[in-house]
Amino acid sequence: MEIKVVENVLKLNDEVAALNRAVLAEQGVACIDLIGSPGCGKTALLERTLQALQDEMRVGVLTGDLATTRDAERLQPFAQQVMQINTGKACHLDANQVRQGMQGLDLADLDLLIVENVGNLICPVGFDLGQGAKVGMFSVTEGDDKPAKHPYVVLESALLILNKLDLLPYVPFDLERFRADVQAVRSDVTLLELASVGNGAETKEMVGESGFREWLDWLRNLVAGKSALTSNASASTIT
Amino acid sequence: MEIKVVENVLKLNDEVAALNRAVLAEQGVACIDLIGSPGCGKTALLERTLQALQDEMRVGVLTGDLATTRDAERLQPFAQQVMQINTGKACHLDANQVRQGMQGLDLADLDLLIVENVGNLICPVGFDLGQGAKVGMFSVTEGDDKPAKHPYVVLESALLILNKLDLLPYVPFDLERFRADVQAVRSDVTLLELASVGNGAETKEMVGESGFREWLDWLRNLVAGKSALTSNASASTIT
Repeated sequence: MEIKVVENVLKLNDEVAALNRAVLAEQGVACIDLIGSPGCGKTALLERTLQALQDEMRVGVLTGDLATTRDAERLQPFAQQVMQINTGKACHLDANQVRQGMQGLDLADLDLLIVENVGNLICPVGFDLGQGAKVGMFSVTEGDDKPAKHPYVVLESALLILNKLDLLPYVPFDLERFRADVQAVRSDVTLLELASVGNGAETKEMVGESGFREWLDWLRNLVAGKSALTSNASASTIT
Repeated sequence: MEIKVVENVLKLNDEVAALNRAVLAEQGVACIDLIGSPGCGKTALLERTLQALQDEMRVGVLTGDLATTRDAERLQPFAQQVMQINTGKACHLDANQVRQGMQGLDLADLDLLIVENVGNLICPVGFDLGQGAKVGMFSVTEGDDKPAKHPYVVLESALLILNKLDLLPYVPFDLERFRADVQAVRSDVTLLELASVGNGAETKEMVGESGFREWLDWLRNLVAGKSALTSNASASTIT
């Protein structure tokens, strides 16, 4: 009986996600769900991404956290529209929260909606929000064993990002092992390797620059409706 | 109706946790539940802790992960007894998993049981496992905003650890802001500041050494039944 209820909750979530997906398609808004651990660099990447793209596309952000509006405050200066969703004790965004968030945005004025999920490498993976693609994010400071320990985010993401490459000299991290573990879980996923930003180490920012350019191109292709997506279930629903 | 079921699940968990707590008390085994994000350094801290304490107390470890036995393999050389619990897609350990894990250990041969929870700063907080104290762990690479964004782990932990102080020169992190945010959430919690280990930066390991000594003393006091615990609900059940 308990399992039945959980199924109902997921079924209800999927129904609302399908509704979100239809609304986004109707408005011509591409959408990604960015998933990663607390502190992997999601907000910092979005700050930089929004700045880089602000003259060529209109990007809105729904950002999820248990508490505070700090991420929304950070992104406000660069985003076309931004809204914070506080989840309280809840460990992930669900489709209904995203639906409510979308109702507070002017979708007609957006090309891309980025949902920055609650910092959590596990629970957000299982909830469809209506996004075109889930993007899973790791950072080198978390250790090279995370794709093996967290295979579901690897399996469900259309794109994987490894962040903070500039910190490689200071942490124990075997890049080849990380790549091999990703491949072992799923051989067809695209992995982009980026540097963190805002650490004052200007000379180190050249590391990962090509990965950042690939990330911007991937977003451009997504917005243009091109096939930047690798095969995954949810990706195929965006047209 | 759905909420009712969730309540039942939590009630059942609490009943099993109380059973675990009684068994541990009967066997004279102190127990902590170590909670933190993926890659905050839980396993590395335990490697070092087990080595430091191996001549003075018998420590067993139950270590939780979605997949792989990598943490148990890392801890095996130093722990009196170690067992990996794979949770599949589940985002936290529950009391029943810990109960099953405890049944695979010889508790009479232990002074301290450390439960290393699944890498997740959110979900493990809400589940009592029968531990004497929850220990919440952050690292500087996650950013200084995490206590404000994740207040529940601060509220529920008897002790907080800030790890990877040796990486402070390389990341944007305001230590005063972090401490102030911890205080704002809860003024009576003990915060220990440690360095990460195993990064090859031998000269940097002096940073955080006093924090590591305090951590060992805190564990010694816990095992000795002294009042190393700050006030929190679950802590009061250990005597």
